[in-house]
Formats: sequence, C-alpha cells, structure tokens
Amino acid sequence: MDKTMNHANKQSFIPSRPVYITASASVAGTKEGRGPFGDLFDMIGKDDFFGCKTWEEAESTLQKEALLLAIGKAGLAQEDISYLFAGDLLGQSIASSFGLASFPIPLIGLYGACSTCGLSLSLGAMALAAGIADYVGCVTSSHFASAEKEFRFPLAYGNQRPLSAHWTVTGSGAFILSSIRGEKCRAEITGITSGKIIDYGLKDSLNMGACMAPAAADTICRHFCDFDSGPEDYDKIITGDLGTIGQKVLWDLMREKRMDISKLHLDCGMEIYDLQTQSAHAGGSGCGCCAITLSAYILKQIEEKAWRKVLFVPTGALLSKTSFNEGQSIPGVAHGVMLESV
Amino acid sequence: MDKTMNHANKQSFIPSRPVYITASASVAGTKEGRGPFGDLFDMIGKDDFFGCKTWEEAESTLQKEALLLAIGKAGLAQEDISYLFAGDLLGQSIASSFGLASFPIPLIGLYGACSTCGLSLSLGAMALAAGIADYVGCVTSSHFASAEKEFRFPLAYGNQRPLSAHWTVTGSGAFILSSIRGEKCRAEITGITSGKIIDYGLKDSLNMGACMAPAAADTICRHFCDFDSGPEDYDKIITGDLGTIGQKVLWDLMREKRMDISKLHLDCGMEIYDLQTQSAHAGGSGCGCCAITLSAYILKQIEEKAWRKVLFVPTGALLSKTSFNEGQSIPGVAHGVMLESV
Repeated sequence: MDKTMNHANKQSFIPSRPVYITASASVAGTKEGRGPFGDLFDMIGKDDFFGCKTWEEAESTLQKEALLLAIGKAGLAQEDISYLFAGDLLGQSIASSFGLASFPIPLIGLYGACSTCGLSLSLGAMALAAGIADYVGCVTSSHFASAEKEFRFPLAYGNQRPLSAHWTVTGSGAFILSSIRGEKCRAEITGITSGKIIDYGLKDSLNMGACMAPAAADTICRHFCDFDSGPEDYDKIITGDLGTIGQKVLWDLMREKRMDISKLHLDCGMEIYDLQTQSAHAGGSGCGCCAITLSAYILKQIEEKAWRKVLFVPTGALLSKTSFNEGQSIPGVAHGVMLESV
Repeated sequence: MDKTMNHANKQSFIPSRPVYITASASVAGTKEGRGPFGDLFDMIGKDDFFGCKTWEEAESTLQKEALLLAIGKAGLAQEDISYLFAGDLLGQSIASSFGLASFPIPLIGLYGACSTCGLSLSLGAMALAAGIADYVGCVTSSHFASAEKEFRFPLAYGNQRPLSAHWTVTGSGAFILSSIRGEKCRAEITGITSGKIIDYGLKDSLNMGACMAPAAADTICRHFCDFDSGPEDYDKIITGDLGTIGQKVLWDLMREKRMDISKLHLDCGMEIYDLQTQSAHAGGSGCGCCAITLSAYILKQIEEKAWRKVLFVPTGALLSKTSFNEGQSIPGVAHGVMLESV
C-alpha cells in the first residue's frame, strides 16, 4: 500500500515515523491473578477495592498504578509524556478522568467500549507519526464490579448469568509509545487499521461475543485488503474479548470469505481465565482484558520472538444501559494494531 | 516555538501540514432556533424529537444530519472521509455510535464532556499532520432532554433549576478538515493546545461554569506560554460554555496572572441564547453549544475577516451521575484550537 496515506476507501495507515512500545505495565484483580497469566502481571490487588471505598475509585486506581509503573519501567519522568490517550467502560469515562487527573499531561479521552486499548494505541501511533510528541501514554481499564453496575445489575442483586455471558476483567494496562527505540523496547507498531461500526442487529447484552464478531471480521478483512496480506503472513491474529461464542462466529464469517484463521487465532478473553475451572462462562471481556493480556503475555511472546508478527484486534460492543433499555441493537467495532518484533 | 514538536513541558503543536476547515454544518433545536443565531443555523428541528421516539435517537439524528450536510457542503462523497472523530455527553457516547453507524468511515470515539468539539478538531488536525488522511470529519452533539436524564433529573420530574444552572444546547456541529485548501475553505487551524485535567474540588453539578473555568484559564495560559503570545495577539478568545458565573471566575483567574482578557472574551454559552428573555439561567452548555456556535457564527466572522485570529477553547466538566452521587468532585478540562482567516 501507499506508504502512509489513508486515502479514500482505505482504513489503514503505516506510521511515517517508527512507533515503538517502549514499556508497558499491567495491574490485575484477584480472579485474573489466579488465572493462567497470574505470574506475568506486574501487580495484583489483595482485594478488588484496591484500597478504595467504591468500585469506580478502585478502577481509577488501577489506571493510575498501571501508568505510574509503565512510566517507571520506561525510565521516564511524568513530564516526558506529551499526551495520554485513555478510556474505560464507565459512563463519561470516569475511571480515566479521575485516575489520570493527577498527571501533568494533557488527556485525550477515548471511548470505543472494549476496543479502547486498540483505539488508544492507534491514536498514540498517529500522534507520533504527526511528529508532535516524543512519548505518549496509552491507558485503558475495566473492573468487574463497576461494569456490572454500569451495564447490567448491581452485584448485590445476585442475578444468574447465562453461559453466553462474559466476565468483565478487573485490570488496567498502560503503554508508553515513542519513535525513539529505547533499550527495553518491547515491539514495534507497524500498521493501524481503524474499524467502522458494524451492526448485525443483535440485542442480547449477555451475548457480547456474537455482537462484536462481525466487527472483528470486518476489520481483519480490511486489514488484509489494505496491506495486501493474508492469514499466512501473521504468527497470530488476536482478538480482544470475543469469547467462545464470538470466536465461532468470527471463524464462520472468515470462512465465508474463504479465509481460515482458526489455526492462528487467539482471543484474549478465552486466554485470561482457565475457562474449565474459573467460572468465567464465555470468557473475559472489558477494556482491561486485552490491555493486560497484551502487556503481560502477547508482548512477552513478541519480545522472545516466539511470535514475530501479530495482528492485535481489540473488539468493542457499543451500548449503554439507556440504549439497551430503549430496545436498540448492540453495534460492534474493532480496531486493528499490527505488532512486530524488533 | 519549535515548529511541530510537542516536547516535554509543552502542551501545544503547530500542524506540520496546513489544516483547513473545508466545510461545516450546524443542526439546532427549537429553543436555539429562537435565539440570536437562529438565522445562521443550517437546519432547525420542528420539535426536539427530530422525528424519533426517544431523546437519544433524536440526538443521534442530529449528528447524522449535521455530518451529511457538512459532507454535502464540502462537495465530497462519504467515502472521501478517512476518519470520523466524534463524541457526545451520553453514557458510552451512544449519540455518536448510533448516529454515525451508517457511515462507511472508521469511527474514533472521543469523550471530553463539553470540550469534545475541541478534542475532535485537535485529533482531526493530528491525523492530517500525520499525513494519513485527505479528509476527516469532526462531529459533536448534545440534547437538552437526553442530558438532563443522563446527568440530573428526567424532564417529567419538573425540578427547579438554580440561577447557576446551564441549559444544555440541543444541536450538533460537524466539520470537515483537510490539508487541501478548497474554494469554500472557512478557516485554518494553525495551532492546538491540549488541556490537562484541572480539579479545584468543586462538587456542584448545577454550577458547571465554576467547575470548568480553572481548566479554561490553565489552557489559555499554556497556549500563550507555548506560542509566546498574549491576549493582544488575538481578535477574540472564545470559551465553550462557562456561562455568566464561569466567565467571572475565568476573568479573575486570568487577572491573578496579570492578564486581562475581559475585552476580547466571548463565551458560546452566553451568546447562543438571549439570556434576558430565554430563561437559560447561566447560559447554554453541552458538546453542541460551542460546536453549532463555531459553525454558524464564529467561522462566519472569520470568513468575513471581522476576526482574523481566534483562540477557541471548548470547556468540559468531567463527571458522571455515578461519580457525582459518590461525592466526587467535578474536574474540568479545556482544549484550545487556534483559528485564523485564510
């Protein structure tokens, strides 16, 4: 493709300056700490309140701690970061607003539901490509209890969850991006494919995987088209939180386009918990799910060159309790980030 | 300042490629249509439902219509636009998600409360500076009835409003940005100053002007510092929706820094209604307030060269009903956009 231009009918760009993930950090909740990646997270809470009085303050603390850790690992001062690109699942993104208020850095608030990790990395890459920053921070979070309250029922209500339901991950991932390749540089972002909203008309907020899978399929196909590539060019294609049901839908939709990604597809939501023993039903979800999986697991594989080229596709379901209660459908969106080992 | 770099301790950038506002459109509600700018809006609803069944659908329709109009005025097809940068005040930004879902354009969801118009123009300028798009769209909206439901009380409750309360503007503004200077080009964006979150600890959601004024003062001062300029270098300094109380606070805070902006300051919230007769109390507010004022009034003044250089500073109050009910403060944020006649 044309080196940098996202012209008409393209949804991708290649950054005109290199974009490295200089450092990253993950902070996780107790259930995530007992999961397969428990040993890989930088910090695990003793309980899910993280020393706070409310779930929302706890989630703000997750973001703050993750960013502090990432800046520290990068060997930078807070003042070295030019922009923060951040978001979460709560109404008016309060986990980011309150969690990042103490940093002396301009805040660009994002909302892309559970795809926000991809959105923040995309915009961070855009800022570096524009040559307007040396370092930017990309932060996202979710919290099981604040998300249940925001979208479904308060925990105290004790509602039953169908097997298609996801378990919102308690965690936050923070990433420092730079065009300067530092010693500890974890990976390079070599391409971005931004997603359109895709709405198949599904309305079940307890089956988010099916709502998001069409958006994942659309973005992955657009990525292949824009970069003139195919599944065989990647070591892994990793979606955010499609879960067991969404994965099946994605594979089927890709097969309809004569592409089989089943052998190289991973879904963060299915990897972050032991689905046999941890009662997470269809899998993990939330902005934090793919963010902490990227920081703790995916970037480790890329650093160790177990994987050299990965298409990372966080997926989001665009609903609020208001739109849901008014009978609206649940559109999906997915933002693709191409990651390569350095 | 250094031509493009937002290095450490700077919050501003000058786009490395020119950024023009190629076209724009405004869609407004009935009360706004009866206000001082009534004759300038592109479209005014017959009633505030805009043919829909819910306030949220009505707000989505505002965004859709505003963007369609702006694309039409620019003489473009939808496929010519590479990215949409959009947001609103509702939980999970549903007005944008649903309003813009039908466009075949990647959607970057933003949240900056009432500052989102500034945020969307800033990111649009960033994308053009990165050289990754020919055209981008920037869309924001608010709706009185959906905002009252989201943040305060449903309309049917009929609560009394103190004189410090704002009236959320029903309206949406859409802007097409490009590095290509078209014939109808309305203005050039010559600099961006992104805001930090500023929290003075205020907690009154019925006095948003006071909550946002410190952020406006901070961003305006940072802008002067980064560009080595002062009030005398601008024809107007225009804030988003500080209203009568916020304006006083802003002037006082600026005077503490030995800068008098009282002679060149305008506030969109105070201009959009006739405050003597329209019962809007402290003034208008909401993402739509400064967006439709920019499209209908400010850009007209710049086009006619009545004003040659304007610092446009949309202001936002970062709260949700959850954070408010949990006793949290209301932090502010303000994003500055420098506009010049072409």
